[in-house]
Amino acid sequence: MSREGEETASLWGGRFEGGMAPAMVPLNLSLDVDGRLWRQDIAGSRGWARALGRAGVLTEAEVSALLAGLDAVATRLESGGIPAGVEDEDIHSLVERLLTEEAGEVALKLHTGRSRNDQVATDLRLWVRDAVSDLDRAITDLGRALLHLAEQGLDVVMPGYTHLQQGQPIRAAHWALAPVWPLLRDRARLRAAAEAAGVLPLGSGAVAGCPFPIDRDALAADLGFYAVTENSLDAISDRDFLADLLYAGALIGVHLSRVAEDLVLFSSAEFAFVRLSDGFSTGSSLMPQKRNPDVAELTRGKTGRLVGNLTGLLTLLKGLPTGYNRDLQEDKSLAFDTVDTLMLVLPALAGAVATARFRPDRIRARLDSQLWATDLADYLVHRGVPFRRSHEAIGRIVRLAEERGVGLQQLSVDDYRSIHPSFEEDVHDLFDWDRSADSRAVPGGTARSAVETQLAAARRALGG
Amino acid sequence: MSREGEETASLWGGRFEGGMAPAMVPLNLSLDVDGRLWRQDIAGSRGWARALGRAGVLTEAEVSALLAGLDAVATRLESGGIPAGVEDEDIHSLVERLLTEEAGEVALKLHTGRSRNDQVATDLRLWVRDAVSDLDRAITDLGRALLHLAEQGLDVVMPGYTHLQQGQPIRAAHWALAPVWPLLRDRARLRAAAEAAGVLPLGSGAVAGCPFPIDRDALAADLGFYAVTENSLDAISDRDFLADLLYAGALIGVHLSRVAEDLVLFSSAEFAFVRLSDGFSTGSSLMPQKRNPDVAELTRGKTGRLVGNLTGLLTLLKGLPTGYNRDLQEDKSLAFDTVDTLMLVLPALAGAVATARFRPDRIRARLDSQLWATDLADYLVHRGVPFRRSHEAIGRIVRLAEERGVGLQQLSVDDYRSIHPSFEEDVHDLFDWDRSADSRAVPGGTARSAVETQLAAARRALGG
Amino acid sequence: MSREGEETASLWGGRFEGGMAPAMVPLNLSLDVDGRLWRQDIAGSRGWARALGRAGVLTEAEVSALLAGLDAVATRLESGGIPAGVEDEDIHSLVERLLTEEAGEVALKLHTGRSRNDQVATDLRLWVRDAVSDLDRAITDLGRALLHLAEQGLDVVMPGYTHLQQGQPIRAAHWALAPVWPLLRDRARLRAAAEAAGVLPLGSGAVAGCPFPIDRDALAADLGFYAVTENSLDAISDRDFLADLLYAGALIGVHLSRVAEDLVLFSSAEFAFVRLSDGFSTGSSLMPQKRNPDVAELTRGKTGRLVGNLTGLLTLLKGLPTGYNRDLQEDKSLAFDTVDTLMLVLPALAGAVATARFRPDRIRARLDSQLWATDLADYLVHRGVPFRRSHEAIGRIVRLAEERGVGLQQLSVDDYRSIHPSFEEDVHDLFDWDRSADSRAVPGGTARSAVETQLAAARRALGG
Amino acid sequence: MSREGEETASLWGGRFEGGMAPAMVPLNLSLDVDGRLWRQDIAGSRGWARALGRAGVLTEAEVSALLAGLDAVATRLESGGIPAGVEDEDIHSLVERLLTEEAGEVALKLHTGRSRNDQVATDLRLWVRDAVSDLDRAITDLGRALLHLAEQGLDVVMPGYTHLQQGQPIRAAHWALAPVWPLLRDRARLRAAAEAAGVLPLGSGAVAGCPFPIDRDALAADLGFYAVTENSLDAISDRDFLADLLYAGALIGVHLSRVAEDLVLFSSAEFAFVRLSDGFSTGSSLMPQKRNPDVAELTRGKTGRLVGNLTGLLTLLKGLPTGYNRDLQEDKSLAFDTVDTLMLVLPALAGAVATARFRPDRIRARLDSQLWATDLADYLVHRGVPFRRSHEAIGRIVRLAEERGVGLQQLSVDDYRSIHPSFEEDVHDLFDWDRSADSRAVPGGTARSAVETQLAAARRALGG
Repeated sequence: MSREGEETASLWGGRFEGGMAPAMVPLNLSLDVDGRLWRQDIAGSRGWARALGRAGVLTEAEVSALLAGLDAVATRLESGGIPAGVEDEDIHSLVERLLTEEAGEVALKLHTGRSRNDQVATDLRLWVRDAVSDLDRAITDLGRALLHLAEQGLDVVMPGYTHLQQGQPIRAAHWALAPVWPLLRDRARLRAAAEAAGVLPLGSGAVAGCPFPIDRDALAADLGFYAVTENSLDAISDRDFLADLLYAGALIGVHLSRVAEDLVLFSSAEFAFVRLSDGFSTGSSLMPQKRNPDVAELTRGKTGRLVGNLTGLLTLLKGLPTGYNRDLQEDKSLAFDTVDTLMLVLPALAGAVATARFRPDRIRARLDSQLWATDLADYLVHRGVPFRRSHEAIGRIVRLAEERGVGLQQLSVDDYRSIHPSFEEDVHDLFDWDRSADSRAVPGGTARSAVETQLAAARRALGG
Repeated sequence: MSREGEETASLWGGRFEGGMAPAMVPLNLSLDVDGRLWRQDIAGSRGWARALGRAGVLTEAEVSALLAGLDAVATRLESGGIPAGVEDEDIHSLVERLLTEEAGEVALKLHTGRSRNDQVATDLRLWVRDAVSDLDRAITDLGRALLHLAEQGLDVVMPGYTHLQQGQPIRAAHWALAPVWPLLRDRARLRAAAEAAGVLPLGSGAVAGCPFPIDRDALAADLGFYAVTENSLDAISDRDFLADLLYAGALIGVHLSRVAEDLVLFSSAEFAFVRLSDGFSTGSSLMPQKRNPDVAELTRGKTGRLVGNLTGLLTLLKGLPTGYNRDLQEDKSLAFDTVDTLMLVLPALAGAVATARFRPDRIRARLDSQLWATDLADYLVHRGVPFRRSHEAIGRIVRLAEERGVGLQQLSVDDYRSIHPSFEEDVHDLFDWDRSADSRAVPGGTARSAVETQLAAARRALGG
Repeated sequence: MSREGEETASLWGGRFEGGMAPAMVPLNLSLDVDGRLWRQDIAGSRGWARALGRAGVLTEAEVSALLAGLDAVATRLESGGIPAGVEDEDIHSLVERLLTEEAGEVALKLHTGRSRNDQVATDLRLWVRDAVSDLDRAITDLGRALLHLAEQGLDVVMPGYTHLQQGQPIRAAHWALAPVWPLLRDRARLRAAAEAAGVLPLGSGAVAGCPFPIDRDALAADLGFYAVTENSLDAISDRDFLADLLYAGALIGVHLSRVAEDLVLFSSAEFAFVRLSDGFSTGSSLMPQKRNPDVAELTRGKTGRLVGNLTGLLTLLKGLPTGYNRDLQEDKSLAFDTVDTLMLVLPALAGAVATARFRPDRIRARLDSQLWATDLADYLVHRGVPFRRSHEAIGRIVRLAEERGVGLQQLSVDDYRSIHPSFEEDVHDLFDWDRSADSRAVPGGTARSAVETQLAAARRALGG
Repeated sequence: MSREGEETASLWGGRFEGGMAPAMVPLNLSLDVDGRLWRQDIAGSRGWARALGRAGVLTEAEVSALLAGLDAVATRLESGGIPAGVEDEDIHSLVERLLTEEAGEVALKLHTGRSRNDQVATDLRLWVRDAVSDLDRAITDLGRALLHLAEQGLDVVMPGYTHLQQGQPIRAAHWALAPVWPLLRDRARLRAAAEAAGVLPLGSGAVAGCPFPIDRDALAADLGFYAVTENSLDAISDRDFLADLLYAGALIGVHLSRVAEDLVLFSSAEFAFVRLSDGFSTGSSLMPQKRNPDVAELTRGKTGRLVGNLTGLLTLLKGLPTGYNRDLQEDKSLAFDTVDTLMLVLPALAGAVATARFRPDRIRARLDSQLWATDLADYLVHRGVPFRRSHEAIGRIVRLAEERGVGLQQLSVDDYRSIHPSFEEDVHDLFDWDRSADSRAVPGGTARSAVETQLAAARRALGG
């Protein structure tokens, strides 16, 4: 633990007597969580060393020695991982200690003008940029899997639901494309999080700014940031970019849970519209016949923790005073958990969707003639009946069919005329699933033509 | 209640026997919540009437009659509010009933090709646009109040805190400007929510799209939307734009709670850096001397419900299947509460900030000489001492001063030299608050020059 | 607004100059929220008046005058409600002002030794007691409705689901009873909340206790509390009892959402196990045929806000320092919303359940022969085959039947023997739904005998 | 991964073709999370083996072989931990595979009549019991640390705060005891969670109950449960006991965050009432003088994740249909995280409190004469002035003193009389801190006598 070893004594200086209490040590340690930031920490330190050089605080030789030392540290961590059993309190301490081993005395100059406050904020922002890039790829893959499924459902007409009641016929492709658009919106949200993370806090010091003449704009350009923070107090305590990421993650979870719910429903025996492949189904330890859609259930269930992580972060941030407070350390494990969870769920769901198959026979068998009710209402509208009156007439027709226990297409024209005089012989032309779907041809509708346009737009948006 | 009256029977048609159960009526009613959407509902209906006209579904005369009728309804609602005791189930039913009273039979044609699913989604998006505009103004006002306070603190040096411990001296203006930048980021988040809301769902029907040849792009332009939704299933159940708004609201709450926490602390007797005006202070029913910062406490406390509203919406959305589900009705009261809460808090906090005053004498009295510790460390760095060694030396100096019970400026040069030989006579030049603050002159730092630059940037961003 | 009127000036005393700022007034007002506590406020004040009398602080005549005055105030509020347009800041101010009108000068003595801090905590605890009692009744009614439904499902065998896949046959009564037990646990949680609320804070003053010799135990007994708080600081800021209530409410919501989800599924065309009555179904403004389970969807959706209210309260409480802070004022609207939401949902859901009907024909049609798979595995176990081997054998039998496109009962004994030699002629005796259900006769199982025992136990627990 | 190895093929049987898809494997694995349940899993399996023996399903020899095998498995896991690189999907699979290695063929009989659904529910309940016991001890230790601190503050009078403004004088012991009572309430909540967990689900099978004549009551007694579940459907999906635990954990977090907030405030330079020991303080990497209360900040910050875990679980549970759904798997990591977090925080905070010291000189220096304002108001009450008039008079006195820039004790008797004629010479007797504190002698008050009574009660409740 830090204050007991020689190296870390240097981190806190000579102000303390005695070591840290044993009960405090594990609470204070964060290396097991923030260790994964080592690449970002080294990248940030390389940038800082160069900035100190440009500012004349370090000589060229010192900068070179630091960069070489940081390269050596990176090589050690790359090959060996975080060494087990080390007593460094966090990744920053570890990297500094290793750098001292590699580069000697000059390592003690690296932290000049920098604090862990602006250092960790910089590391986190670099990490968010990488995480967003990974998530974007995984979301795109899921989008393409949906596209692939949609392509197989262009000629399949299925019930469209509201309130989980059959509403109007839709093309299966239309259903499979519905979640693509939320995913595209999610990509925009992720980009916004990355943009929020793209402002450089380094050079803010502990709270008041940096007393050495660092060229922060050059440093930003060096590290790939597009701007620098404008207030050091804000810079060290701003975690908005993390909240943006966790919010995007929670909403992605909500979107995935909707796909998952549909898959659970549609792979039940009662719907049986979709069959998941064996590779994405699971069995039961007791019931030999079971083929369970665990992939969808786990996806749906993990939404809980994604929402919980966002709530956790907002609750953590609430009520803190200005300036860095150690509470902020808790931000990282929440953020890592959200990204790890999504990187586990997204590929599995993409695989499940890509290998799922529609079951057109089962779908057709479930189409209920009441799905034509709106078509019937619109039929009367086309003959001049105000929609409200038409709607009511069809309601009475539905009741008539139910009382007789027959489908709407089994009522005679006379039956129809008994309810409303505007019905004519051609009413039976309505009872065609494709015709019904194709009647909704406005942009965004379920007509074959509109769905083809939609497919093309989705393909463009997803690339590949 | 709807199915009992003649007008609303027409809304659901002839399918049901008997009325709604008394225990169901209050659960089903939403007029008390969604009544406030009447302006948006009428605007959307005006657009829809014109679109039906352009599509040839209605004649020009019918469109004119509907527009006149909707104007009359608007006039009635504007002057009289939502009539008390009506039995309409929601604002859409109410408007349609009133329209029937005003325009007669033609009113029964307005709902042609439209469902409440795409209608309410459109209303909500129109409302979000207005709400964002109100919030943007209120946030800007708070930003300007902070700017005003900052201008009074340019020459006041106060302790800058981390861990609520005095860290380094900062200008009070720097502290007052710190919350401006989060607010500016919040404005970007609100704009993103408004942009997400700017895509038109109308024309998506109940689930499958619209069977009448509506020109959705023209309709979008008519209603001020910049695009149309691309999938009717997604369009009717997408509430991402509301989640965006509630997330922005929760994060605004977090930012305000930080300002509030500072005000609570700084108006305590122990800090006493800031005095709230009488108009924003409150007293005690028991303790005659009390002057409480309730404005800040209420602000901080309301963050809870803002986070709760977001959690509530995400939890509501989780696990729903595709398509409209009535669960979605609950979205509105959560969204209204977030906006109402912020529109209550923001002006009050802006007023409190605008009328607050720094107390320079009390601030100066609290400045502890240990705030110079980093300056001392940097002093040695300038003389070639590696920062880590310098940090440790100053740690020992701090302990020495504490053991003697004196301030750092009261130690002699010999004392300093006894700890590190690089100290010279000029060490005492460091003990000047302005000099210390002004040494941190990088962009974002607390030097007078940097703060003036920051003030100018904030002024530009806030306009006015 | 308070400091402008004569009455409320007396509430805060002479310490302030000028009135409250207009922007502050609406934030500070809470009468629209806490007005509903008037009964509890008057009850608490009656107790306090008597306690002051017993302590010798007031004369008998003064106590009588106060009690008479409080009665008169109660009568006014009972008949007229909270007067519109009043400028009292909260219910405590209003009651005190009205009391002054009714009782004159003696009213100014009532607040002796009391603060709003211990007063509002007492009011809230009295309210929780009443709310719990209401909720308990409503939950019991829902439990009885489920019991009623169960009684109709004793002879109906339906699929039992895991992962929404058919698992094993169960009695419909068993399904209908499943949610009764969580509701009974919820009643225990509500009782715990009421018990937490049953400790009296009155007599804690603003923060330090009461300087008058109040007999707090006698006061507790007078007001129906079973104990008194043991630390005044804790007493004025303790809201654990509200958190207990909101937690119980959130978990009730989770339980109701499970019932709701089942009702949505089971009233879909694909399952069609249950038919909701017309009185609890709703229609569509566009699709004439729709019969939607809105009651279940609204129930499920409202779970979101119940979880949100709990999150909101916990977030509000997090990080507050010891002592009363005005943030606490926000507790009330969250608590009221949870109770109001449940009191809206519970009767509606109870009504829907009580009038729902099983559809035995549709249920029977959905029973899949694979539901017998575990029976087949157990058959082999009874013949000495280790369960794991038996489970695997039946897995192969299921695949065989699927490949042939037949039910398990349609395979011949030779087919069975081809997979495992232990099968004998009597294997076909297994294919009987009642037999299968009745084989699971342990306590808690789905056998008729076990379900009857369960019904009796539920009846006892629900009373009535 | 499960279906690829021989052992786990037996777990799901012969129904599946091909192996699990690589993208599905990591999502499906839970051994890294549930591995820690091995003790509970083995305990439950031992009970189940004995129950099968009592039911005549297994012979005595088989039971003995299973028990011996389970002992051997326990020894392996105890000494070696969860073996690295194993492909078992969860702890149940692992234990069954190891048991097969140890006990041979008979191991294949253990899962007879049991499913993972009732097995994992049983394991979790056993774990909750242990976790509650650990938490109870850790909370008690913190309670004792507070008691210890309180004992040192019996003679120290400090400001009591409301709204973070000085309100009335209180004894420091009174402040230190305030958090003890919430902790005692938390212990009751934890006991309630343990009681909820104390009902046995084993014997519920997968969904419908167990077809073998298990004596569930005897099994419950054997495993230390006090009752058996009454409905198998409820039993396999009930996670109320986990929600109870996570709620208790979240509220404990809220209570700890209050202690933490006070410690942060009181160890600031501005308050300086309390000094944390060096062993629980931390320094800064940049500012050599810093002594930060990280222990308190980390405690406060971790409240966020405790609230988040509860939100996550409730969100997970919301909207699931009846029966086991794989979503439930996510319950464990949330529960483990809550318990682990608290077991990290509680000992550290207990240590910090136990080694903290009051700084009586600093406290005394902060006592403001306005703390006597209520005493002055009560003085007039004792002389017959109605409290409201007295309150207003003192308000004017406070303003007078402020205008003159003097303390209340520095005003002359004539000054007092100029505001209200009832003041007499003895008014100056009031200005004594001990007298003021001791005047509040009701139970729960801050008088020395009352605090001593409170201390004794706390000691009894905490034992030890």
